[in-house]
Amino acid sequence: MFDFELTATQGAARAGTLTTPHGVVQTPAFMPVGTHGTVRGLHPDEVRHAGAQIILGNTYHLHLRPGEDVVRALGGLHRFSTWDRPMLTDSGGFQVFSLETFRKISEHGVDFVSHVDGTRRMITPESAVEIQWALGADIAMQFDHVVPGQASHELAREGMERSLRWLERCRIRHAELSDGRQTLWPIIQGGTHADLRRASLDGIVGSGEWTGIAIGGLSVGEPKPIMHRVLEELEPSMPRAVPRYLMGVGFPADLVEGIARGVDLFDCVAATRNGRHGSAWTSTGRVNVRGAAHRTADEPLDPHCDCETCTRFSRAYLRHLFMAGEMLGLRLVSIHNVRFLIRLGEEARAHILAGTFDAWSREWLRRHSGQDKA
Amino acid sequence: MFDFELTATQGAARAGTLTTPHGVVQTPAFMPVGTHGTVRGLHPDEVRHAGAQIILGNTYHLHLRPGEDVVRALGGLHRFSTWDRPMLTDSGGFQVFSLETFRKISEHGVDFVSHVDGTRRMITPESAVEIQWALGADIAMQFDHVVPGQASHELAREGMERSLRWLERCRIRHAELSDGRQTLWPIIQGGTHADLRRASLDGIVGSGEWTGIAIGGLSVGEPKPIMHRVLEELEPSMPRAVPRYLMGVGFPADLVEGIARGVDLFDCVAATRNGRHGSAWTSTGRVNVRGAAHRTADEPLDPHCDCETCTRFSRAYLRHLFMAGEMLGLRLVSIHNVRFLIRLGEEARAHILAGTFDAWSREWLRRHSGQDKA
Repeated sequence: MFDFELTATQGAARAGTLTTPHGVVQTPAFMPVGTHGTVRGLHPDEVRHAGAQIILGNTYHLHLRPGEDVVRALGGLHRFSTWDRPMLTDSGGFQVFSLETFRKISEHGVDFVSHVDGTRRMITPESAVEIQWALGADIAMQFDHVVPGQASHELAREGMERSLRWLERCRIRHAELSDGRQTLWPIIQGGTHADLRRASLDGIVGSGEWTGIAIGGLSVGEPKPIMHRVLEELEPSMPRAVPRYLMGVGFPADLVEGIARGVDLFDCVAATRNGRHGSAWTSTGRVNVRGAAHRTADEPLDPHCDCETCTRFSRAYLRHLFMAGEMLGLRLVSIHNVRFLIRLGEEARAHILAGTFDAWSREWLRRHSGQDKA
Repeated sequence: MFDFELTATQGAARAGTLTTPHGVVQTPAFMPVGTHGTVRGLHPDEVRHAGAQIILGNTYHLHLRPGEDVVRALGGLHRFSTWDRPMLTDSGGFQVFSLETFRKISEHGVDFVSHVDGTRRMITPESAVEIQWALGADIAMQFDHVVPGQASHELAREGMERSLRWLERCRIRHAELSDGRQTLWPIIQGGTHADLRRASLDGIVGSGEWTGIAIGGLSVGEPKPIMHRVLEELEPSMPRAVPRYLMGVGFPADLVEGIARGVDLFDCVAATRNGRHGSAWTSTGRVNVRGAAHRTADEPLDPHCDCETCTRFSRAYLRHLFMAGEMLGLRLVSIHNVRFLIRLGEEARAHILAGTFDAWSREWLRRHSGQDKA
């Protein structure tokens, strides 16, 4: 039920088609993040109209609220949230390792205190797989040990090696549970250290047949050039036949830089988080809709954008909604940002298919330099 | 361009058709309130799909933010907010008389301090008309002197008589401005005192030809039976040929009680305000979606409702959205409540046309007793 067909390549950049039980995903593609089973501020129809082919759910958040038992009782995350296209859940690893409240890491798993109700919880490789099986996304992720972006070789090695051991435990538990409707993807760790990244990839490739491989632990504090170097060092050794997912990465320039280095899938909350703050990515740079310059601006956020916001509402109206504290404003700018990233994936794909990706991506990065700040 | 055709009556209840430059309104009808040029939490398409034939804008709020100059520069409130159906603006009277900050009332107008930026402002009958002309709704309201629901005869008389004098000033200024695309409606005042209400109505009817008449100063603190008595006392003397608008009133039972007493149009923020708090009106009574009973409830808010929320989402999902603080929840329950009131108007109209309104309304009120609390 899981298949990946590589249609065209240009340099490292790839155009492919990922098939899942809930449909196909034309790559490269951006996946909007639906933390709590909803892409923040948006209706599933708006996410669909923005062109999203696949969305992401957060296992950590859904485990704490409403709980996977509730989601399973309602027929799984697809039915619960009324999203009928492909879906991926992360494993909760990134979230529990990012917690600033109490957490205790052992070989068994991660012991932590819920930020929702203060109860003591534990996530293990096995339970991360069990929760994701209950949620029922098409693609589940292994539970991994994430280290900070500037982690020492020793710390990064510890996290990488533990992630490999945990992958094996995830694989075993997932094989017991899954009837084939859900697949499990491994995550390459190793911080910014080339030898560790290589060892992680070797360990993963040597441990089984996978339908996709993720690259984790990037965009977690390290400078962008370091992220690019890690991708470049990994790329020649990555399996060609499966999609590559760069986790948690997704400012516009990151997509273009990542696609140029062979990445197929991206996710990031920046599109909706920035949208809620009135910050929009446009073809001419970042626009903050609160700006006084937009007070009577009768033009769309981006005249080159085909999103539901740009084809209907003026900057003046968006500014007014933000100044008046009206929820519709947050929604409309989020719709635009999500569409912006999805369209970027569509354009990159078209240029890869046409053999014009190199020139297009260089020109795009030149025009948009400086737009990818948080 | 403004016409009202009375199609059927049953007792005092009326079914009519109001024609405006932006289209027709089948009455009785509930008008959702778009305070800042947006029905709070909803997209104009959602308001349309809920069946809204006409919405209301608040002159006070739009005057302060973004300012009528901005709205006019963007082509008027219809174009600014992308709402192409009929629209009505209130005059700001109710808001400035409700201010708890500084305000000073004189025959000239009301001097007050903006709650937005602390600046000193003045609204007069003339400026209220000028602002509304700039906003460009189909229907503008006179600037009136509103008194509390339990106001003494002396105070209510002062407000009523001043409202009549202000009506004349509004009429003159509006005649100077309007090219016929906007009409002006007067407002009956007089508190809970039958003689004053009667004098107000006589003064209005004697002062010109109107295309509609509003009843103001009700649902402002007085008990419901008093509001019903005032409506009953007014009804026999109200002109038959124009629509009657009961301002600021619109809990479900208020609609049914009002329609039974000859009211054609209603507006109220309760539908969206309650929606934002997770409180839904349903065919079986009030439902708070936060309730633990809905944790795994796989049924819609109201199985008898045809709204976009009830035909798609479970109570369990709505509860989850509220518990997780997700904006989509506020939106979905608001959509339901708006549709609930609009459908109530549609049902009342169908029963008036069929001659079954008396039995239907009695039965409806019996089933829903107690549901109209704030």
